[in-house]
Amino acid sequence: MKKGMTKVSVLYANGEGKTFDMDYYCNKHLAIVGNLLGDALKGATVEQGLNSDAPFAAMGNMYFESPEAFEQAFGPHAEEIMGDLPNFTNIEPKIQVSKVLV
Amino acid sequence: MKKGMTKVSVLYANGEGKTFDMDYYCNKHLAIVGNLLGDALKGATVEQGLNSDAPFAAMGNMYFESPEAFEQAFGPHAEEIMGDLPNFTNIEPKIQVSKVLV
Repeated sequence: MKKGMTKVSVLYANGEGKTFDMDYYCNKHLAIVGNLLGDALKGATVEQGLNSDAPFAAMGNMYFESPEAFEQAFGPHAEEIMGDLPNFTNIEPKIQVSKVLV
Repeated sequence: MKKGMTKVSVLYANGEGKTFDMDYYCNKHLAIVGNLLGDALKGATVEQGLNSDAPFAAMGNMYFESPEAFEQAFGPHAEEIMGDLPNFTNIEPKIQVSKVLV
């Protein structure tokens, strides 16, 4: 994604008793999010933690033109999107809103 | 970066008394890392935390063909690269090695 964009990272921390269904996440949750956010969502990536002490089981990243574009697209659907989380994980994710510098 | 690649994220957590010189990081540290890792490094991105409660002040991401390609490129230069950290931050970063799934 290009310089200057807004990246929203959803970070699922590893921990004892934590579960994460990567198949559901990639194949169902992402489609739900994509449909709800529409054209405001400029791209998305998913990464799975590999190292045994990886801080995060999974990281999902969404790209928007600006923080405002994210808020406008996400706000009205926040409840529905967050309501899907128990279908694939018991982890409460950390949300990071970043500016892409490089 | 494309599906299947290895992404190494270097995550600099925010916190009281933590400092991070983004100018040095983008303009000097990245060049040092790029020169040392050479062709094994397939791409790099930098993101700066925007939300006031952003977990991370900065996230640096490097892409490699495989976890082995990362280890082979990084290992011999780990000391020199990590030795540059005090020049721009007092944060001890978390390292996440991930597989790009989407």
